[in-house]
Amino acid sequence: MPLSPEQHAEITAARSESRPTFRAVSPALEEILFAATPVLDHGFVRVIDYMGDDAAIVQAARVSYGKGTKKVNEDAGLINYLMRHRHSTPFEMCEIKFHVKLPIFVARQWIRHRTANVNEYSARYSIMDREFYIPSAAQLAAQSTTNRQGKGALLEGAEAKRVFELLKTDAETVYDHYSEMLNEDENGNPLNPANQGLARELARMNLTLNYYTQWYWKVDLHNFMHFLSLRADSHAQYEIRVYAEVMLEMFKRWLPITYDAFMNYRMGGAGLSARGLKAIRQMLAGENVTQESSGMGKGEWNEFQKLVGK
Amino acid sequence: MPLSPEQHAEITAARSESRPTFRAVSPALEEILFAATPVLDHGFVRVIDYMGDDAAIVQAARVSYGKGTKKVNEDAGLINYLMRHRHSTPFEMCEIKFHVKLPIFVARQWIRHRTANVNEYSARYSIMDREFYIPSAAQLAAQSTTNRQGKGALLEGAEAKRVFELLKTDAETVYDHYSEMLNEDENGNPLNPANQGLARELARMNLTLNYYTQWYWKVDLHNFMHFLSLRADSHAQYEIRVYAEVMLEMFKRWLPITYDAFMNYRMGGAGLSARGLKAIRQMLAGENVTQESSGMGKGEWNEFQKLVGK
Amino acid sequence: MPLSPEQHAEITAARSESRPTFRAVSPALEEILFAATPVLDHGFVRVIDYMGDDAAIVQAARVSYGKGTKKVNEDAGLINYLMRHRHSTPFEMCEIKFHVKLPIFVARQWIRHRTANVNEYSARYSIMDREFYIPSAAQLAAQSTTNRQGKGALLEGAEAKRVFELLKTDAETVYDHYSEMLNEDENGNPLNPANQGLARELARMNLTLNYYTQWYWKVDLHNFMHFLSLRADSHAQYEIRVYAEVMLEMFKRWLPITYDAFMNYRMGGAGLSARGLKAIRQMLAGENVTQESSGMGKGEWNEFQKLVGK
Amino acid sequence: MPLSPEQHAEITAARSESRPTFRAVSPALEEILFAATPVLDHGFVRVIDYMGDDAAIVQAARVSYGKGTKKVNEDAGLINYLMRHRHSTPFEMCEIKFHVKLPIFVARQWIRHRTANVNEYSARYSIMDREFYIPSAAQLAAQSTTNRQGKGALLEGAEAKRVFELLKTDAETVYDHYSEMLNEDENGNPLNPANQGLARELARMNLTLNYYTQWYWKVDLHNFMHFLSLRADSHAQYEIRVYAEVMLEMFKRWLPITYDAFMNYRMGGAGLSARGLKAIRQMLAGENVTQESSGMGKGEWNEFQKLVGK
Repeated sequence: MPLSPEQHAEITAARSESRPTFRAVSPALEEILFAATPVLDHGFVRVIDYMGDDAAIVQAARVSYGKGTKKVNEDAGLINYLMRHRHSTPFEMCEIKFHVKLPIFVARQWIRHRTANVNEYSARYSIMDREFYIPSAAQLAAQSTTNRQGKGALLEGAEAKRVFELLKTDAETVYDHYSEMLNEDENGNPLNPANQGLARELARMNLTLNYYTQWYWKVDLHNFMHFLSLRADSHAQYEIRVYAEVMLEMFKRWLPITYDAFMNYRMGGAGLSARGLKAIRQMLAGENVTQESSGMGKGEWNEFQKLVGK
Repeated sequence: MPLSPEQHAEITAARSESRPTFRAVSPALEEILFAATPVLDHGFVRVIDYMGDDAAIVQAARVSYGKGTKKVNEDAGLINYLMRHRHSTPFEMCEIKFHVKLPIFVARQWIRHRTANVNEYSARYSIMDREFYIPSAAQLAAQSTTNRQGKGALLEGAEAKRVFELLKTDAETVYDHYSEMLNEDENGNPLNPANQGLARELARMNLTLNYYTQWYWKVDLHNFMHFLSLRADSHAQYEIRVYAEVMLEMFKRWLPITYDAFMNYRMGGAGLSARGLKAIRQMLAGENVTQESSGMGKGEWNEFQKLVGK
Repeated sequence: MPLSPEQHAEITAARSESRPTFRAVSPALEEILFAATPVLDHGFVRVIDYMGDDAAIVQAARVSYGKGTKKVNEDAGLINYLMRHRHSTPFEMCEIKFHVKLPIFVARQWIRHRTANVNEYSARYSIMDREFYIPSAAQLAAQSTTNRQGKGALLEGAEAKRVFELLKTDAETVYDHYSEMLNEDENGNPLNPANQGLARELARMNLTLNYYTQWYWKVDLHNFMHFLSLRADSHAQYEIRVYAEVMLEMFKRWLPITYDAFMNYRMGGAGLSARGLKAIRQMLAGENVTQESSGMGKGEWNEFQKLVGK
Repeated sequence: MPLSPEQHAEITAARSESRPTFRAVSPALEEILFAATPVLDHGFVRVIDYMGDDAAIVQAARVSYGKGTKKVNEDAGLINYLMRHRHSTPFEMCEIKFHVKLPIFVARQWIRHRTANVNEYSARYSIMDREFYIPSAAQLAAQSTTNRQGKGALLEGAEAKRVFELLKTDAETVYDHYSEMLNEDENGNPLNPANQGLARELARMNLTLNYYTQWYWKVDLHNFMHFLSLRADSHAQYEIRVYAEVMLEMFKRWLPITYDAFMNYRMGGAGLSARGLKAIRQMLAGENVTQESSGMGKGEWNEFQKLVGK
């Protein structure tokens, strides 16, 4: 598990001191504040702070003085309307801050979402932990033969065994050599008193991309939903999707009304092209529509067939 | 004053319900949360919500598990270091949300700060209030004769009187006509039953730029400090500077250590060019430096003389 | 017409000097480069510069060394794929810069698109032109009685006549008083030698929101398409939509393949919620779907009926 | 060298077809357009496209119709003024697009500059090249003993030899195993017909951080200068600084006037705190200033002494 006894003690201490505030409070999110939810073999997600609740979205949309209406039905109606019509600014009025531990190759995908604030653990200043990601047997997929980005059947037997062996051995080896180049043991003493030790900013380049890093990541709700819609999607790589799925649960605790709207209008929804829209109208009018008559390409037509449940 | 009795009652109600949280709390900011600080003749600034405290900056800078060190000295040292070396990401870990009422011409300057979240009162949907800005006599400056952007001596006597008369009369007139075109009295009843009333989205174009609008404005601390460094500066137009000055006081309540660092390293500091730096070194070495020998242009040389206290 | 003879001469001169470049060139856009396309009664849009062509999007998507494939079919296939799957980064590789003259109330909507670069004519430094927007008779709509944001029937007869009279008179009056307060005639000479003239930064507040301003506006293609999808939409206010429509034509000249993809997948497309998707599958399976059984609210159900062509 | 004969041929072909444009052209930058300038052992920087020249900044600052003044002196004066007073929007009117090949650990620093557009070579879709970075002997620095972020003396003799051996051997090994897990030879044929081959998105995690990646990186001039001011600074890590230095030369070709202003006001300049400013005034007045009397901390005082040339 990713946290040391000292870290657990710190989290327990932080959760023992509640203080009064006049701000919006999300009781269900407070229940898990600071607590680490495990992800992958050594990673985690923790909520560190948040701003706003469902009513704050309503309030901003109305630029009203009060807290929005007290009637949950009316708030839900407005939030559904805003989500359906892709209004973005009221959702930007909420903010959430996470502490995330994740493999570097996942961090490299994640950081592409630019509209967020990030403080990452620095391997220029500090020594990296000896923690790396090894996929579980259930995730050891072959390269898809039909889709360059996709995964195919599971690797099994000797091939799987060999992959695990290579990943583990290489990760162990590069860390041993990282330590040797740094010339430091775990207590910060020189391994070899005759050596100076390579600069940390250089030694880090010997680590593989499955090593864990960590960061504070803060984002407004609008951009958080955009992140989730891409990364909790079934096409996202498994290793980032599991983070997004954990964060979806945290979203649900934080803003239950907005979460429901998001699941209906964004996660569970779909986009139609002009051609797709026309085809649906024709089909509902009883016309026969084919790929050729629709004007769609083959890939698009296959996607469209799935969308309409054929 | 900008708030109605109902609005005062709502603020009082919001301030009567404190709730426990595990999050960082800023007691001095809680004291004024939701309360409207008046600015100009009808404007105000209210803090609606905030995320983080001085320790949250330290914590992000360290990507640590705990709350940062308990020793205020150490925290202040790190915050000073971060500010001096223009680190930006740890300051992005704090966030603040305001409700601001301000003249439209001020809002037009303010919105140029793009890295913020905004929900503005919509004159497409809603009817604007009959509230407009008239400068006080102490702010009725003439156009500077030496500086296109600047203000010169105060207008006085007949000229000042005439300016007040024009500003007031025109603002009153355009609002009367706005109402007439909308064909609505204050209770939403038609003024003239034979008329349909012009669309709000069109009628608004008849209002002058000193009419008040209002918005929710949310910003991270890094961008907030950038806003303050430009808008609390003596070169900023008075009508936006007074907002920045009120917000500086709110900043001081919120994050006292960071505020001190900001006032020393940003607001009270100055930038030197390579030529300016060279000139200072020469002057400290006892050399005589002139505009010519410095390589500076005339405007820059005058600014430099002021900077070094000549 | 918005341009003076001198300005026409400058544009003609700029268009008389072509120079060789190795960069991507869009011949159809070069044909209209710098030329002002009129919009509304005094506004215009001009393309000042651009970066990239359809092939540049393909090239970025492939991070290839060359110019992308020479075969237009393959490029179109990839661009369609990228648009359908809402890839954004390859479209960010193109950039366009406009010079726009527009009423201030339109500029206030436009500037809400934050991911763009803007240089606006400054009424702090400079004197505003005596140019204001008056709607044409065909656009003088009443406030909708069913939709707070919408427009209803046209105003006609005495009511329309009165609106035109008020808009024109007030715009003329506030400009007369703006000039009087500035104490400057059109040649920059004092109107009244005994007066100092009010500072420009203050006098501007007396102008109404239909006065024209102008700016340089530069945006990458991804954000440009987002702007167009919102502002060329039928729900956008007429006065901003006409700008977006002119820019759509410029887009078509610049990047014909991407334009086609945009019109099919974005402008002509639609978003479905999870409930909408389920309803369509049920309808295609021959089931009877009602508002109640769909789980949609009334407004959403009406929108859905239109979408499926009922 | 990083480019294959085919790539050289493509660049030569691209440079053989110039076409006429009415846009601003930078002749000195056209001379090197598309050409790869080598950086580190396998990296490069290429300019792919650009928008604007020095006159475009002036033109935007004036929101004029023409091309700005023809007199270079006046343009330079305005550009110096804008740079000195930290105006940002006119500089945002220019844009440049690069193709960069760089080690992953450098890419991880670089991507932290969020206000840019990026398309990176995808190791989810494609197979990485067998190219990794090994520092030159002149860059093999020890960890500084006084500064956690800094580099100390050079590693030499047996320690240096061992570091080179470890870096090379590990990089070779992880790539051999990457290929084995992918089960693909260089022609895309299976190495072992009995195996399926691990998904590319998983196999990539076995590569070390000194492997080269590549991307298209597009940025406006304001953010480009911010990047350069941080990454061409002497405190930046050598491996990113060499990229910034190459780009500084490209900047000089592109916008010679703005480059000069940037070097004087930004790269060669310095920031003073309120305390530093006060100390300089006291020193110029002949007063003795000590660390204690200045109110500065020890680190800040040392930096200040260097700044004033002591």
